[in-house]
Amino acid sequence: MKIIALSQSEIKKVLEFDKVIEGVKSVYIQKSDGKTSVWPSIEYHFDEEKAVMDIRSGYVMGEKLHGAKILNNFPLNKDLGIPSFSGLLLVFDSKTGVPLGVMDASFVTSMRTGAAAALGVKALARKNSKNLLLAGAGRQAFYMLAATLIEMPQIENIRVIDPIDYENAVKFTGDIAGRLKDINIEVNDKVFIPVNDMPAVLQDTDVVITITRATSPIIKKEWVKPGTHFSCIGADMIGKEEIDPEIFRNARSFADDIKQCTSFGEMEIPYKMGIITKESIIGELGEVLSGKKEGRLSDDNITVFDATGLALLDLVTGKVAIDLAKEKGLGNIVEI
Amino acid sequence: MKIIALSQSEIKKVLEFDKVIEGVKSVYIQKSDGKTSVWPSIEYHFDEEKAVMDIRSGYVMGEKLHGAKILNNFPLNKDLGIPSFSGLLLVFDSKTGVPLGVMDASFVTSMRTGAAAALGVKALARKNSKNLLLAGAGRQAFYMLAATLIEMPQIENIRVIDPIDYENAVKFTGDIAGRLKDINIEVNDKVFIPVNDMPAVLQDTDVVITITRATSPIIKKEWVKPGTHFSCIGADMIGKEEIDPEIFRNARSFADDIKQCTSFGEMEIPYKMGIITKESIIGELGEVLSGKKEGRLSDDNITVFDATGLALLDLVTGKVAIDLAKEKGLGNIVEI
Repeated sequence: MKIIALSQSEIKKVLEFDKVIEGVKSVYIQKSDGKTSVWPSIEYHFDEEKAVMDIRSGYVMGEKLHGAKILNNFPLNKDLGIPSFSGLLLVFDSKTGVPLGVMDASFVTSMRTGAAAALGVKALARKNSKNLLLAGAGRQAFYMLAATLIEMPQIENIRVIDPIDYENAVKFTGDIAGRLKDINIEVNDKVFIPVNDMPAVLQDTDVVITITRATSPIIKKEWVKPGTHFSCIGADMIGKEEIDPEIFRNARSFADDIKQCTSFGEMEIPYKMGIITKESIIGELGEVLSGKKEGRLSDDNITVFDATGLALLDLVTGKVAIDLAKEKGLGNIVEI
Repeated sequence: MKIIALSQSEIKKVLEFDKVIEGVKSVYIQKSDGKTSVWPSIEYHFDEEKAVMDIRSGYVMGEKLHGAKILNNFPLNKDLGIPSFSGLLLVFDSKTGVPLGVMDASFVTSMRTGAAAALGVKALARKNSKNLLLAGAGRQAFYMLAATLIEMPQIENIRVIDPIDYENAVKFTGDIAGRLKDINIEVNDKVFIPVNDMPAVLQDTDVVITITRATSPIIKKEWVKPGTHFSCIGADMIGKEEIDPEIFRNARSFADDIKQCTSFGEMEIPYKMGIITKESIIGELGEVLSGKKEGRLSDDNITVFDATGLALLDLVTGKVAIDLAKEKGLGNIVEI
């Protein structure tokens, strides 16, 4: 039995954002058609190491792919000079159960998460949105921004806020135009500004993407103008929370997966508080993308997309990487 | 990041039964000390393909190993000329989260399952046991037998029964002595006989190992003599069942994991029928191996060990394979 092993640097060489966005969109739509299966996610906290690992798995029927992703986050690794994040993605052919590939999971995760954020913005923000607030200036923020600018080229003003450290936002915006150009994203008409006054910047923000590790709200309801869209990405484990639960009270809210979002996503706290119920959530993003449900009804709606992450997205993105790597003669074919 | 990839043939070259038995025993004992974590198992049935896959995962604290195993069973593959079973095992270092290796899971599974069966026999059968009944003559039966003969060299008469096809048992016993000699197991004093009269053979059987795919009992209570030990291995999914639930009524019963065994192991049906409760199960095998609980109290006890399989065993076995492969310069080091 032979499988392909792909390293992070090989995946970086082959993965293209437009193909990832297309794959992620297709998965969301298949999910809305009942053609996917999201298996229970597993999370474990290593007390002594102050670390966490999670396993996500599932099945994409239309692509006949199943598999699992194991992600480890060991922050104390910094002291040892090794990366905090590491993880592997396994992709199987669901016609035969034969393994197709094993690969580094972190870049795949970044790309598919960016695609998810962007699809949320495209589906739920006002079409004339010009002002984006990127809340978070960490390692993942770049991918959220890049994918969103591909899907929403009309965005002109990108404000970046780091709720903990303004200097991070300054650093992030400093070289962002170059990094985007490197992956062929048009930035000539765009302005990138670090900001630090959250209430002020929200006064003329059309789209907010949250990608922080916050465990209490960084955005209060009273700061939010009608018409704002939120793609909430950071909250993917119990206890994480980025926006005021009260924002959900009158918002049109969408999940990537209702069960996951109300269990450990941005919807967890408002759901536990009773601000939203599974019935008051309008639906899943795939239902909007497939035209089954309406996203935004008016320019005044506040819309929220909560993305907790689905292994389904990794599987399809992983398969794209496998196919492109094979085309280009990259990757290591190993006997298993 | 570099990991080692091991193929089935490489694992076959390096894995030795005594080291696997030692590793499995150590895991069971750690489990009884609360030093392991068994994460929820995931099972999915592919309707169209008439196939099933399962994911087992967990953490062995003493060895600082965590990871997951994905096993696929696609029986229709036979028509395509490819193996029905395939699977991968991922092993991570729990001090750093760094992946250590990826490998074919099927041989590891066979070895650690054999070790589990043998440890059950050693801990719970009468010390003077001479007559073993191996119920099942499929691919896995060899490993159960081999490990048991290592742990219980006093066994002299090995009877093999295939409840569906007597010819299988004939074939199995035909070349078994040679196969055992190949892995340095002493067989000169032993007799291997295919049998087909279950009630008759049970009259002088000391130890029964069940390793079939049965979904209804192949052994009735009234056939069973006092003093018999059962290591029940085949039932590892909901609905599988090999022995009469009534056997459990007065038996001293042990689980590899009480939660798993009562959910989908041999204990599932008697538990659902109310014949046993979680309280009437004496304990887990590790508690016997560590001396926390007594196994057999008298020569008349009927004892049962139900093994549903734990990823913990695969992790430790996988790590043994990694270490031995590195020693011998085998395996493929790949960049991830």
